[in-house]
Amino acid sequence: MEKFADYRLRAPELGSFIVQLLSRAGADDPSAAAVSRAVVDASARGFDTHGVRLLPHYMRTLKGGRINRSPNLGFTKSAPAIGHLDADNGFGHPASYRAIEEGMAMADATGIAAVTVRNSSHHGATGCYTIVAAENGYTAIGMTNTDSIVVPHGGTKAFYGTNPISFAVPVVGEQPLLLDMATSSVPLNRVFLRRATGAPLPPEVAVDADGEMTTDAHAAQALLPLGGLMFGHKGAGLACMVDLLCSAFAGMGHGATLMPFGGPDFSTPCPLGHFFLILKPELFQPLDGFNDSVAAFLKDLRSQPAHPGTRVMAPGDPEREAIADREANGVPIDPVTWAALQELGGEFDLTAPVPVSQSFHEE
Amino acid sequence: MEKFADYRLRAPELGSFIVQLLSRAGADDPSAAAVSRAVVDASARGFDTHGVRLLPHYMRTLKGGRINRSPNLGFTKSAPAIGHLDADNGFGHPASYRAIEEGMAMADATGIAAVTVRNSSHHGATGCYTIVAAENGYTAIGMTNTDSIVVPHGGTKAFYGTNPISFAVPVVGEQPLLLDMATSSVPLNRVFLRRATGAPLPPEVAVDADGEMTTDAHAAQALLPLGGLMFGHKGAGLACMVDLLCSAFAGMGHGATLMPFGGPDFSTPCPLGHFFLILKPELFQPLDGFNDSVAAFLKDLRSQPAHPGTRVMAPGDPEREAIADREANGVPIDPVTWAALQELGGEFDLTAPVPVSQSFHEE
Repeated sequence: MEKFADYRLRAPELGSFIVQLLSRAGADDPSAAAVSRAVVDASARGFDTHGVRLLPHYMRTLKGGRINRSPNLGFTKSAPAIGHLDADNGFGHPASYRAIEEGMAMADATGIAAVTVRNSSHHGATGCYTIVAAENGYTAIGMTNTDSIVVPHGGTKAFYGTNPISFAVPVVGEQPLLLDMATSSVPLNRVFLRRATGAPLPPEVAVDADGEMTTDAHAAQALLPLGGLMFGHKGAGLACMVDLLCSAFAGMGHGATLMPFGGPDFSTPCPLGHFFLILKPELFQPLDGFNDSVAAFLKDLRSQPAHPGTRVMAPGDPEREAIADREANGVPIDPVTWAALQELGGEFDLTAPVPVSQSFHEE
Repeated sequence: MEKFADYRLRAPELGSFIVQLLSRAGADDPSAAAVSRAVVDASARGFDTHGVRLLPHYMRTLKGGRINRSPNLGFTKSAPAIGHLDADNGFGHPASYRAIEEGMAMADATGIAAVTVRNSSHHGATGCYTIVAAENGYTAIGMTNTDSIVVPHGGTKAFYGTNPISFAVPVVGEQPLLLDMATSSVPLNRVFLRRATGAPLPPEVAVDADGEMTTDAHAAQALLPLGGLMFGHKGAGLACMVDLLCSAFAGMGHGATLMPFGGPDFSTPCPLGHFFLILKPELFQPLDGFNDSVAAFLKDLRSQPAHPGTRVMAPGDPEREAIADREANGVPIDPVTWAALQELGGEFDLTAPVPVSQSFHEE
């Protein structure tokens, strides 16, 4: 465990600064607004790996030409409950917000709708989009494929992406229940972080260049699927489901055909697919009964006995605590990201917001 | 590892015998046919834990009165893409086959359809139903909740069921791609089997009466979610998703409100919920393009480098090998189940089919 100093910034100021950075780098207004909304929202919810930390990467893809600065988002329906959003090689964020909006409108009529997104790009935390549906009273499932970084079960070389699954359900009187999980045990970012600190990785999360399990972050070349050496067929099976729903159903290539997220080519589109399901609960069950069922489930789950010093939480509960802390104290920005933001500010003649405080976290 | 002798029986003869057993115990013709079809199909595909081995249990619930012998299956639509099947406290098998049929008909019109099943009961392997959709050219996702046997992440007492997720996709020229996985690392049955053999359990799959991890099958009281001690929030998160989709959306109680599957009460209904999604690929993409995408994915996946002596398989590949073996050599029935089948034969004045051979497997 090592201690990291974070700079705390107010979310609204941070958001405005990021919008301006993106705009001056050439993003059109809807793109700049959507990317800023998504990364600040992720950071405000505690999804630090998929929050503001990604902004320097997005700026690089924007400046490099991988991203279409002024995409023409096209939406079509191929059946009453199926929609397709063409992201026109722009940022994945505006396309994903739009897909959720279209999906909610379709689910109003049909009860459930599937919306695929094609010609998209990395959209940050998939939970940023499913939660919008839940905040509007819908339940949503979201998935995205990504480029190869996870070995298939029994394999020695990366094939799947981290292919996350997100699930969001509205809860009366509180934040939605929100699951947002990669189908690998850890994100790649955890490996990079451990390289910096020298701390070993947990067992059965990563493999070296020969495909052998390693806890050495420097030797790690790819991730193992959720379930590790013995039960990784399950994590890999979920990654397969995500990959097919985001490729064959969206008219896109599977994850292993994509160029690396991390470059070195930042000029050629790296066209991801996403897949969203939107369900309208009151077209399944009377709304009161549905809400009561969700509340009863959560009450029962949260009251389960736990090991001393801990308690049983529902998906999204840790994030609920982060939201309260970050509303009160600002969004934490790690030192590397903070330096990058200041450098970008200098490049585009913008002044980064002044941190309101500092805080510390351990890794 | 211990060696077990299995009796090999021809699937059609075994199926006829099981239909007659169920009929003589009072099941109506559609129920007897559906249960027999499901358990023999599961065994023929290699899902031995969810195949004919479960027949003695189903007979117990039928004789005890838990199961309605002549259910009146009721189907209603609450929206153009949402259907509900009321299983009338009968076997889960006829209800699940019917739900898939209704879902395929609905997806013909809307592209995707959700069908919930209420007042159902244990339906064996969820993959037995999603694969029917795939054999008819549809893609399906199936889920079921079950009674408590899996601790929540950080918890010490069983709360979730094994809450499986199944995913089936048609593949031109071969058996469908089929994922069918519990959201725990191992099924409960694996624990029981290890009690018989005395072999230790793998680490991080089970807990004792105090909620502490154990590898002693005799001490094991509940299962850990997929991901084990460190990443079990992911398996538990998936179990949560399955539980809510099968309860709140189906108008049923969540898994922890259900009576124990294994009795001692076999006379009161134990009403499970199931949730099925049916997608019609050619309403998403032109069918040729879709089929080419799936084929390209599978070709790429199966050609990935693997550790010496192994190869990378797609979900359903191990079962493909089992299907070929079992078509040629008969369905393997373990000695305990074989004795139970013979005893049931005696009870209902029926002669069990003659095994065609014996084979051995290791656990």
